[in-house]
Amino acid sequence: MTTISTTPDVFAVSLSDIQQAHERIRPHIVRTPLLESAALNDLLGARILVKAESLQNTGAFKFRGACNRLLQLSPSQKQAGVVAFSSGNHALATSAVARTLGVPASIIMPADAPKAKIEGARANGANVILYDRLKDDREAIGAEIAGKTGAVIVPPYDDPDIMAGQGTVGLELVEQAQALGVTLDAVIAASSGGGLVAGVATAVKALSPQTAVYAGEPAGFDELARSLASGQPESNAPGAQSICDALQVVRPGKLTFPINLHFLAGSLVVSDDDVRRAMKIAYQHLKLVVEPGGAVPLAALLAGKLDVTGKTIAVVLSGGNVDAAMFVDALTA
Amino acid sequence: MTTISTTPDVFAVSLSDIQQAHERIRPHIVRTPLLESAALNDLLGARILVKAESLQNTGAFKFRGACNRLLQLSPSQKQAGVVAFSSGNHALATSAVARTLGVPASIIMPADAPKAKIEGARANGANVILYDRLKDDREAIGAEIAGKTGAVIVPPYDDPDIMAGQGTVGLELVEQAQALGVTLDAVIAASSGGGLVAGVATAVKALSPQTAVYAGEPAGFDELARSLASGQPESNAPGAQSICDALQVVRPGKLTFPINLHFLAGSLVVSDDDVRRAMKIAYQHLKLVVEPGGAVPLAALLAGKLDVTGKTIAVVLSGGNVDAAMFVDALTA
Repeated sequence: MTTISTTPDVFAVSLSDIQQAHERIRPHIVRTPLLESAALNDLLGARILVKAESLQNTGAFKFRGACNRLLQLSPSQKQAGVVAFSSGNHALATSAVARTLGVPASIIMPADAPKAKIEGARANGANVILYDRLKDDREAIGAEIAGKTGAVIVPPYDDPDIMAGQGTVGLELVEQAQALGVTLDAVIAASSGGGLVAGVATAVKALSPQTAVYAGEPAGFDELARSLASGQPESNAPGAQSICDALQVVRPGKLTFPINLHFLAGSLVVSDDDVRRAMKIAYQHLKLVVEPGGAVPLAALLAGKLDVTGKTIAVVLSGGNVDAAMFVDALTA
Repeated sequence: MTTISTTPDVFAVSLSDIQQAHERIRPHIVRTPLLESAALNDLLGARILVKAESLQNTGAFKFRGACNRLLQLSPSQKQAGVVAFSSGNHALATSAVARTLGVPASIIMPADAPKAKIEGARANGANVILYDRLKDDREAIGAEIAGKTGAVIVPPYDDPDIMAGQGTVGLELVEQAQALGVTLDAVIAASSGGGLVAGVATAVKALSPQTAVYAGEPAGFDELARSLASGQPESNAPGAQSICDALQVVRPGKLTFPINLHFLAGSLVVSDDDVRRAMKIAYQHLKLVVEPGGAVPLAALLAGKLDVTGKTIAVVLSGGNVDAAMFVDALTA
């Protein structure tokens, strides 16, 4: 069994980093509720606790990491500004925190990101630069801007401060489960670059070693599932499509993958139809607006990807930024 | 100015009743979060704090009152069971609490209540009896069942324990605002029979006398607005229609009206279109599923029914039980 004492020191983030991040960001974030629905419990024959990060500021957990990173900028860095590349939620989060701190922000987003996310970043006063997700290299665009302006790059996941911020989801989750007097059999969080699930796993495995931590991924972007199976970073084949706009990376993160390989019990892979069903169930029984990527952990349970009978399982519903057309599609599917 | 010292002793509920109710129900309810959206604040030029009672157990504040009432049943009353008449949310709440306590429940609901509410009460194991809202007298049906079976009637609003339970929304709201270091200029909660807003007003005016408390009502069912204006209970004209299925009564409650007349600064009346817009805004900026009746306070702000510029206002979004067709209609309006 994995215990905290065996955690390699080379990992980019530790429980202590996450605890310090929590102290730092606590006044700025929402302590999102851990919700429960009797109807959902009945449906799954298990006790399902839902960490509603869709209710976080800017509608996703990404606010935590961005907040932890930007609060540590030096005065001169604050003046030079920040640059972030993001499929959407990290863009919203970074631009919102930057606005609060009076820091100029350039955000590089795919041109096919949901309108709500692009408009949200612009509403936060960010300079939004759109790129072609299939042709352009967003990291190169970011590096170019940083080179010209001296702006600090705020990466979406491969950054210790970002990962520590996201890990505060796991810290709160364990605290809230303890307050209910329950021990979690498993925790599931969606994975794209893997920052959220790496941070959550670091916190959960340190505080509740008997709890299994799983990632959740959409079919076609299941690089983590395959990488965990092979023990080395695997890439996704080009051209895959998924309604989970927030979960589309090419390969696991450099800093996140070693942590995920060490801690995770696996990654559960779901279809677009599984995701739509989970969005509808979250609407119906939890009264939550959840975006496709955010619904993946619940989708995995509803699709029977894990035997949960009689167990207590926490799922992180990581975001709620979804265009109305997509949400209506899920409700009427 | 109204202060606590002038509160007539004849009122059905006091701050102390509400505090005792909170102690009693606290282990069973969700302490719903007080949420905030920078985008919504920008839109209204005010600081808007949202008490998300849609996230309460069974999707509405009604769980609080039912819980407070049923926890005080004697052993023989528990055996005889309960009977409730309700447009839906009180049905869901009473049946859910009854199920938890092993109490048989008969629920009398209008045949045109949202399917989600009728099915939810049935899923909770209640004996659901449908009636015609325009022809039948639900109180008479309830009294008949109670007479036959010895079941305890659990009224939707005109009951001191129910009102005290609903008042815990106001208690939490003031505590949560104080934790943020803010003094509320106003609080708005929807009114049907007036139990929620009477309970909220009792708590808020006792703990924060400078805060103005308003009701919110749909056009056609604005009996409280007119009753506050005339100083006596006024009835709604028959035949009115509103998408706010939860807010359709004929006249103000007997126990709730004296309290509302004493404490409320007014009742803000909104149209169905105002309500649809508020549901969409709650979806977009708060990631909350809010039912028509629950969206009325936000609708009042968005429709400019109160001058909120530069102020700090709390709105209670009181429920989230809405059929998908109605929700889709609001998102695509």
